[in-house]
Amino acid sequence: MNLDSFFAPKSVAIVGASSDEGKAGHQILYNMKRLGFSGQVYPVNPNETEILGYRCYPSLLDIPSEVELMVVVVPAPAVPDVFRHAACRGDVRAAVIVAAGFSETGIPERVELEKHIVEIARNSGIRVIGPNCVGIMNERAKLDTTFAPNINQVPGGMSVITQSGSLGASILMFAGDQPVPIGFNKWAHVGNMSDVDLLEILKYYKHDPETRAIAVYMEGIDNAREFVDTAKTVARDKPIIVLKVGRTELGSNAAASHTGSLAGADAVYDGAFIQSGIVRVRNIEELLDTAKAFSMQPLPAGDRICILTEAGGPGIIAMDDLGEAGTTRLADLAPETVATLREILPPMAIVNRPKGYVDMSAAANEIQHAQALDVVLADPGVDGVILLTVPPTFLRPEELGTRVGEVARKHKKPVLACLLAGNWVKQARQTLETAGVPTFDMPERAARAMSNMVKRFHLLKGLTGPTSPGYCVDASDLIARARKDGSQELVARELLMRYQIECDDYRFVRTEKEALESAESLGYPLVVKVVSPQVIHKSDVGGVKLNIKSAQELTGCIRKMGIDVQQKVPGATILGYLLAQQAPEGVEVIIGATHDAQMGPVVMFGLGGTLVELYKDVVFRLAPVRIDEAMHMIESVKGAALFKGYRGARPCDVNALADLIVKVSHLIAEQPDVKDIELNPVRLYATGYKVLDARVII
Amino acid sequence: MNLDSFFAPKSVAIVGASSDEGKAGHQILYNMKRLGFSGQVYPVNPNETEILGYRCYPSLLDIPSEVELMVVVVPAPAVPDVFRHAACRGDVRAAVIVAAGFSETGIPERVELEKHIVEIARNSGIRVIGPNCVGIMNERAKLDTTFAPNINQVPGGMSVITQSGSLGASILMFAGDQPVPIGFNKWAHVGNMSDVDLLEILKYYKHDPETRAIAVYMEGIDNAREFVDTAKTVARDKPIIVLKVGRTELGSNAAASHTGSLAGADAVYDGAFIQSGIVRVRNIEELLDTAKAFSMQPLPAGDRICILTEAGGPGIIAMDDLGEAGTTRLADLAPETVATLREILPPMAIVNRPKGYVDMSAAANEIQHAQALDVVLADPGVDGVILLTVPPTFLRPEELGTRVGEVARKHKKPVLACLLAGNWVKQARQTLETAGVPTFDMPERAARAMSNMVKRFHLLKGLTGPTSPGYCVDASDLIARARKDGSQELVARELLMRYQIECDDYRFVRTEKEALESAESLGYPLVVKVVSPQVIHKSDVGGVKLNIKSAQELTGCIRKMGIDVQQKVPGATILGYLLAQQAPEGVEVIIGATHDAQMGPVVMFGLGGTLVELYKDVVFRLAPVRIDEAMHMIESVKGAALFKGYRGARPCDVNALADLIVKVSHLIAEQPDVKDIELNPVRLYATGYKVLDARVII
Repeated sequence: MNLDSFFAPKSVAIVGASSDEGKAGHQILYNMKRLGFSGQVYPVNPNETEILGYRCYPSLLDIPSEVELMVVVVPAPAVPDVFRHAACRGDVRAAVIVAAGFSETGIPERVELEKHIVEIARNSGIRVIGPNCVGIMNERAKLDTTFAPNINQVPGGMSVITQSGSLGASILMFAGDQPVPIGFNKWAHVGNMSDVDLLEILKYYKHDPETRAIAVYMEGIDNAREFVDTAKTVARDKPIIVLKVGRTELGSNAAASHTGSLAGADAVYDGAFIQSGIVRVRNIEELLDTAKAFSMQPLPAGDRICILTEAGGPGIIAMDDLGEAGTTRLADLAPETVATLREILPPMAIVNRPKGYVDMSAAANEIQHAQALDVVLADPGVDGVILLTVPPTFLRPEELGTRVGEVARKHKKPVLACLLAGNWVKQARQTLETAGVPTFDMPERAARAMSNMVKRFHLLKGLTGPTSPGYCVDASDLIARARKDGSQELVARELLMRYQIECDDYRFVRTEKEALESAESLGYPLVVKVVSPQVIHKSDVGGVKLNIKSAQELTGCIRKMGIDVQQKVPGATILGYLLAQQAPEGVEVIIGATHDAQMGPVVMFGLGGTLVELYKDVVFRLAPVRIDEAMHMIESVKGAALFKGYRGARPCDVNALADLIVKVSHLIAEQPDVKDIELNPVRLYATGYKVLDARVII
Repeated sequence: MNLDSFFAPKSVAIVGASSDEGKAGHQILYNMKRLGFSGQVYPVNPNETEILGYRCYPSLLDIPSEVELMVVVVPAPAVPDVFRHAACRGDVRAAVIVAAGFSETGIPERVELEKHIVEIARNSGIRVIGPNCVGIMNERAKLDTTFAPNINQVPGGMSVITQSGSLGASILMFAGDQPVPIGFNKWAHVGNMSDVDLLEILKYYKHDPETRAIAVYMEGIDNAREFVDTAKTVARDKPIIVLKVGRTELGSNAAASHTGSLAGADAVYDGAFIQSGIVRVRNIEELLDTAKAFSMQPLPAGDRICILTEAGGPGIIAMDDLGEAGTTRLADLAPETVATLREILPPMAIVNRPKGYVDMSAAANEIQHAQALDVVLADPGVDGVILLTVPPTFLRPEELGTRVGEVARKHKKPVLACLLAGNWVKQARQTLETAGVPTFDMPERAARAMSNMVKRFHLLKGLTGPTSPGYCVDASDLIARARKDGSQELVARELLMRYQIECDDYRFVRTEKEALESAESLGYPLVVKVVSPQVIHKSDVGGVKLNIKSAQELTGCIRKMGIDVQQKVPGATILGYLLAQQAPEGVEVIIGATHDAQMGPVVMFGLGGTLVELYKDVVFRLAPVRIDEAMHMIESVKGAALFKGYRGARPCDVNALADLIVKVSHLIAEQPDVKDIELNPVRLYATGYKVLDARVII
């Protein structure tokens, strides 16, 4: 996976370089010159002899020295010839095809053209990024093959992969032109991914010593499963931060219209990102802030954060954001830490009230800032510190920056700072950043970056765990049966049994007589459900009756149910009825599984009942899941407090529940013929659970 | 309410001016000089003859010309003398007391000192802002009485009121030093509010022709009710945007520690802000962005927004944010608009797919941008437009800015723009802003500002409505009875009846015999509830039994209930039992009312049941509410879909429910002796409702 010839080439040919300032072929050359790319640059254009002071060659073949990378900006139909020339030369190792008009058009001959080019490239050992690609950059090499205007290359540890060239470039333009600029190391727009794809660049960044954090802008991917698998191995070593757009229905519709493909259920992406250790962010600023924090500071060794503030307002704003993000705990400072802080700080300081919150007061000077930070960082109960200051007139911001920077460097814990005073603190912020302490425009942005660092701490724990060997279940007989007579309901129960999922003890009866016999052996009160291939949501059509207390009620119920169902679903074939003991009350949950268009088999967990459907309190994961992942799913729903013994109830058997989720996840992953599974409701008890209804679609 | 002597004084004396650069008394004078304040400036200091080129006077009394405003920076104990001198002069109209060390210390003599000063001021016709106040500013007058370092005064239509001096000042420092600065008109830190308070400044801004939008930073207020009433009258004329911190439990704890007072339930603030037409924002950037949008653009006449983008990424990001904010609808463009756009725009453009979304494509030039904007703004189905562009190399950003600005000015609809390319578009953004079109750093920030503009459109509709005359209910007899014998339960039902709130037809029985008689007339199945002054949550102690079907079950139930309750609440006096017919199934809701520490009487509405408690899906309003406000409460809960006929059920009688909320709100507002009301559950039907349980605490 060596892409060095792209990112650190010794020589670059720009095929299609132009002297026309409005053309991409000019801007690329201009960018290389402006930045002072250290290697050789060869413009290629048969109509020019010199552009921007570079000698211009009529063709690739005319360049006398070695060409490692070529940037191709000629129109699409002219691209194959360029590659033939490159093949002829034999020294070109990498090509960025800026030209558009290939497979992205959907026109068959253009799709073919792209394939043809890649074939030539492959046969001659040339790797390709693009076509339809804005370009790539490497700050360290002062390389910029893009036609983006005037990107200010500021050194940093963040490397970027973007699915949108223009957005990706504009992010860097914004970042580099901020009062306190945000730097980067490498940048790549993936374009049509005819050869080198997003995954390969991800893997390259993993091994790239200059890349400390990977920022990805994503609109949607086809090989989502592979992305997740690769990301998991990369995320173990380096933070991956993803801005995946289409979070809401509106956004997702716009994304679908833009990319021409279904963006995929966003909640499934959420789950997949968690499983692969990816920190997902909501917007561009958060992407930049989080990548900056990761690339400058060590990962926190825990989730206990301290806010050290010089003013109440920013402190409260940061606390609000920590509360909203919900990934951190506030550090409970040790009694000695509290005592020392009281001694060091001005008398008006408020120490550890609330827990983990220190208001140093506006009287705190440079030395007190630094000392307080030192004391707090030395507390073993603190995993990271957010330092907030609105420097008052008497404070010398640069002195503050120097002292705080020195202290932060002594410790191996993340310190994120916000000095809130415009250009008044610009130099101080730069001093701090030179010392390795990232600074942020706003307290809430520092807080969110810290929440995201702690999120990675949590995610890393979830990247490994006991793997299940899976189940060797042959279900072909059941699948065949279901397809033949449509009796999915009965097949469902058998299929689940083979995965050791016990459903409630239901009896299938065809007649009133059979019903009465079964009722006798089960015992009243009973639940009765209709079985009909035409009826999916039984309760909506009167096909479920609870609390049947006697034989008389039972026969009455069966007769009425037949009439009701026929009335609501005309022509429904009633195969019979399921009888079961009325289950005791318990917490109702739902477990589902399906095949997602992008992600393949996924498992879903949520609270049960109508209301919960309204609140959309469900979580997804790619299937199969490990037992610890299942446990994390259970803990992740908003209503999770319900399982811990809510309002005096006994805690639920979450271990049994997690085991059930694991089994369902294996079933969907191992049985491609099973389209959809829904256990709903599953009733949870202090010991065990009961699956009250199961639906399997084959 | 004329505070002109503060904000536009002809002359300013700075009492305590200093030549020491580290002192506030120096920085204030320096700020006035630096900005070029147009009026007279008189430093007062007995030890200096000249500071920063201004002639210095030994005392206020020595200034020969008129002094309209005095800024007092001497230590607290010296302040009374300054006011005596001012009183002596007779011409001082206004005083900003920067000095701290007064009532905020909580020390009795300091509280007295503050009172004493205000008394002198009042007797001499001097109005006071402060003490403990960072100062005030007026960009138009180039006035800056603060000691904040180097605030860059950029003209704008936003005026600020802040409860935190340092945060408030740092916001302006940030805003003024942005690559494209955000301007302001007036700014005031309220300090201790010994005389002029937040409300008076709010009213002053209302009548101030230079103020187009009011931005408030708030940590918590004591006279919350009055604030809301005033805000309501101001908000009719001008947008008020409030950043109230302490949104989350963490933030609220920090705020409590900081201000020393309870911050108040945040959900109550939410409701109060809605009732007073205030647009609440989440953070500093949103405060600035929203104020900027309001101060430069007209309010949308509806909620139908169009996104006009040149690139997919920013468009999707903006759509995501619109979806998250949830205040707007996407405009469905008219067929003619769609046709014209298709004609004007490059062939790759995606028009009105999804609805309200136009991707002009990266090929769109300056003219096409402007034409498309013109066509979209002319569509009567469009109430506002978000314009997003990542200018490609061939686009001349300034030309774009000029053309777009011209078009936007032709229409009376809000246009918010985001040109995303760092300094490359800095000049173009300034051109647009000069033309009155606000520009934003990020697409999501433009989108959020638009969502907030539309929010105001919705809020304004809710500021007026049919007022209820209230109920003339004398309940003193009931209150007395409840206090005497503790039989709150029975009193509750009578009290509710006087407000025409009918509870379910319950019979109070003392003995088994009475129970059987009542049961006969009510009819089975029945619900039985224990009545005991010691038992509050009946169901938690076995004091509620449902579905009693026979006389035999009834007597058994009453006996068992007596034993159970005694066991769980030892010593409980059982006064008797309430019997009622088992109510039919329905949607369960809860209505509550209480007296909030800051806000006084408030009414609460939410969905019922255990799960909903977990999701905290409740809304508050100040009581009493109008019927349209009650209806808005019903529509505001997250699970509101449940009332509209969820999954085939019939829609609920929300009119009756709204009427019930209005009645409860009047009860709590008109009966100060009633501490707490809870109707839980109230069961809703297609026609009417049933109050199944009511609790009133007196």
